[in-house]
Amino acid sequence: MSGATLYAINPASGERLAGTFPKADVQMVEEALTAAEQAFHSYQTIHKNKKALFLHAIADALSANGEEIVNRAMQESGLPLPRLQGELGRTTGQLRLFADLLAEGSWIDAVIDPAIPERSPMPRPDIRKMLVPLGPAVVFGASNFPLAFSVAGGDTASALAAGCPVVVKAHPAHFGTSALVADAILAAAEKTGMPTGIFALLFDDGYEIGKALVQHPLTKAVAFTGSFNGGMALVKLAEARKEPIPVFAEMGSINPVILFPEMLDSKPEELARQLAASITLGAGQFCTNPGIMFAIAGYNLGRFKSALTDAISKTPAATMLSPGIAENYLNRANALLKEKGVFLLAVAEIAAQNQHLKSQSLPRIIAVNGSDFIDNEALQEEVFGPHSILVSCENIQELERALAALSGQLTMTLMATNQDLQTHQNLVSQLKSKTGRIILNGVPTGVEVCAAMQHGGPFPATNDSRFTSVGTDAIYRFVRPLAYQDWPQELLPDALKDGNPLNIYRKINQQLTK
Amino acid sequence: MSGATLYAINPASGERLAGTFPKADVQMVEEALTAAEQAFHSYQTIHKNKKALFLHAIADALSANGEEIVNRAMQESGLPLPRLQGELGRTTGQLRLFADLLAEGSWIDAVIDPAIPERSPMPRPDIRKMLVPLGPAVVFGASNFPLAFSVAGGDTASALAAGCPVVVKAHPAHFGTSALVADAILAAAEKTGMPTGIFALLFDDGYEIGKALVQHPLTKAVAFTGSFNGGMALVKLAEARKEPIPVFAEMGSINPVILFPEMLDSKPEELARQLAASITLGAGQFCTNPGIMFAIAGYNLGRFKSALTDAISKTPAATMLSPGIAENYLNRANALLKEKGVFLLAVAEIAAQNQHLKSQSLPRIIAVNGSDFIDNEALQEEVFGPHSILVSCENIQELERALAALSGQLTMTLMATNQDLQTHQNLVSQLKSKTGRIILNGVPTGVEVCAAMQHGGPFPATNDSRFTSVGTDAIYRFVRPLAYQDWPQELLPDALKDGNPLNIYRKINQQLTK
Repeated sequence: MSGATLYAINPASGERLAGTFPKADVQMVEEALTAAEQAFHSYQTIHKNKKALFLHAIADALSANGEEIVNRAMQESGLPLPRLQGELGRTTGQLRLFADLLAEGSWIDAVIDPAIPERSPMPRPDIRKMLVPLGPAVVFGASNFPLAFSVAGGDTASALAAGCPVVVKAHPAHFGTSALVADAILAAAEKTGMPTGIFALLFDDGYEIGKALVQHPLTKAVAFTGSFNGGMALVKLAEARKEPIPVFAEMGSINPVILFPEMLDSKPEELARQLAASITLGAGQFCTNPGIMFAIAGYNLGRFKSALTDAISKTPAATMLSPGIAENYLNRANALLKEKGVFLLAVAEIAAQNQHLKSQSLPRIIAVNGSDFIDNEALQEEVFGPHSILVSCENIQELERALAALSGQLTMTLMATNQDLQTHQNLVSQLKSKTGRIILNGVPTGVEVCAAMQHGGPFPATNDSRFTSVGTDAIYRFVRPLAYQDWPQELLPDALKDGNPLNIYRKINQQLTK
Repeated sequence: MSGATLYAINPASGERLAGTFPKADVQMVEEALTAAEQAFHSYQTIHKNKKALFLHAIADALSANGEEIVNRAMQESGLPLPRLQGELGRTTGQLRLFADLLAEGSWIDAVIDPAIPERSPMPRPDIRKMLVPLGPAVVFGASNFPLAFSVAGGDTASALAAGCPVVVKAHPAHFGTSALVADAILAAAEKTGMPTGIFALLFDDGYEIGKALVQHPLTKAVAFTGSFNGGMALVKLAEARKEPIPVFAEMGSINPVILFPEMLDSKPEELARQLAASITLGAGQFCTNPGIMFAIAGYNLGRFKSALTDAISKTPAATMLSPGIAENYLNRANALLKEKGVFLLAVAEIAAQNQHLKSQSLPRIIAVNGSDFIDNEALQEEVFGPHSILVSCENIQELERALAALSGQLTMTLMATNQDLQTHQNLVSQLKSKTGRIILNGVPTGVEVCAAMQHGGPFPATNDSRFTSVGTDAIYRFVRPLAYQDWPQELLPDALKDGNPLNIYRKINQQLTK
């Protein structure tokens, strides 16, 4: 190690927190990945039910030390207690969801096409395939979910479930939380007899270690949640390797909300309050924060604006995740005010009760008309914080042009009556082509962890719209198919043996069967 | 169009064949993709069974004109009649396989997590997801399969099945065959009422049109089978786009064959004959041609070499696919002879009976010892043709080091007794990590089209080991998940409606059900 030590900051006080963390160097990267590669081979021989126990043991260890972890996360992130308690529950829930997926076992997509020796002119060989893990995976902790998208978050849970050892780069905004969570993982690994090297955590406050991790030849996959620039830097590093490797970069989104005429007309105040709450939730620090809203002038848009202004002005300031994030928020929000045709619609007037708190963000809504939006790509860049843009269009044609100018998104939200959807069928169909999730009369914040969730979307929301980072399908980022041709029963993996010893769903001669 | 015309060459005679083909220009690229984008939206609204009829109609049209297509392909490719008749059957079979997949319908992976309004502290919304097509796909015809990997080959069949309109760039080695096959597709599209723009074929003898197709903003996916340099050039173009898009490039492989001691000892002559036939099949012009063999000295390796030399020397020369491919083969094969430690083991002595035929290739086997192989990456470059390298290792340790030096492959073939596999378990496990398909006591040539096939593999065999270009799973290259949150029944796609009107397998509350 470099010998340098790092420490954590309380964003609310600006003060240094207890504890020091060793700054990693390239030697530690080498050691972590060499150990991960060794662990990879023995981890593959471990029974699926034992791997499931490992994931349950991580969840148990996190719960057992939950109070310390949540308290440290509060100090490091400025997030409130109930939110972090909820996030801890989400984190352990994710781990248990993947444990259940492993124990059930059908996720490996076993497919069997038995031999047809009598086929003419050529006999058909026996071909059987299943998914196998890619190898050691590198995971980047995210700033905005110190638990659920960090050290033992969805990326780590899905990679471990897939069969990949994991090396995590801790996010600099929560080193202490990261260390506590890593301790829980390592304790669970030891308790359940997992191989040494199955997991490692590295600390860095710069970019060198992240770069070295992605470039290391033993790294076979990368998962990242964060900014567009950060994600694309990793994608480019992975593409430039001698052996390119898959990166899944969830790079955020402005999560458009479209206020359709009949719905807007019918309840402008209710929509305004619902959206104001979503925009300001968690100081707006969500990938799915509704950063832009579209409406057609008329249809009670005036009443919507008044109610939105009212709700935003009454929202208290909140502590952001780090001093750097708070500074970026203010700079980005101020820069947008200088774009052509943009004006300030609403700003929070209530600073935090404790005036001495630092890293505070004031929620803000800006407005622009449709034609100024269409010509200005800068208005589509994410502002990470409690911020949204209201785009006011003259008529449906301008709304259609404005929406056609949008790039890919994690979510699209339609505030619409069934009549609105019938009237604007083509527009709705176009919106579907630009998003990973399409929400009707709800808010995009709150990403349910379940099998049906798609947390991903067309570029630039992610770099590959075919994958998700939330929900059980997140596992498919870390696996590839391997086909066995003409292997004898006794040498096949259990998943592919006649008689189905694992009792999983399999496709045999194109028929799903169990 | 540019006004220039192109024509086709008979590789056996070097003569120009009848027919001219319009050389495409960027305006034709623009028109094809604009029409494809328009077709994309209406094609999505077409019922799956009608799409299946479209694929069946293509197969019907190809069969109806089979004699003309096969005759033209013979003239253009130098491939023999039975091979091309078989390839036509494979091509129509692939189309019907995807038609059946569509009609059955479960491939779209419908997942439903119904709402839980009473859940505390937050109700669970209703989330349902399914796969949706990416958009217009660009397919590159391959030189070595004028039918099965070209205009109506597996890439086109899987992209059309996925819901993506297709623009094909014809391979310059078989323009006439490509035009006849395109006619069949267009006739089938008209007959079954598919939208204009669902398919287009463009001709070019250079790289400009391929480049323009990959760079066009309306292109959303690319499929390619061919050389490493060709594939990587397309991958880099796609990565450099403003909106990066997925490319699946199957870039070939040297398909190692490992002759384990007990098996080699027990039947050296039989193995030699089996491998000689695989190496020279179709003039060695297969992605899965066994381009390298590994053995340990002793164990009757001498008898294997003699029998291999004997079999190769008696193999007649064969016409290669094009004069350029024949020239490249000779140059690459001769260059390898100059590498350190390489010597010529066997070469065919029998030229074609018709001495006047051009583009002939003589099968050739070269040999090198293990230590010279390990240090020389040039020996891992594919030689497209009837060529293989025998790597002779001193002992098991050197064999392990030689195999550890191998890069990713489409296939690995183990010639081994069960005792060999038991003795060398760790080595077998290492081999699995480097390949998409692992074959026991067979040959890698002959890629079965079935659900269990994996035709892909770790880099550099392909650029993304998570996908396949052969078999029904090839469809997953062209789709992404889309989640619907809180949509009413009547506005959901049929695949996601309660009551399962399509009668497909779906995952509901994590349980597979129909």
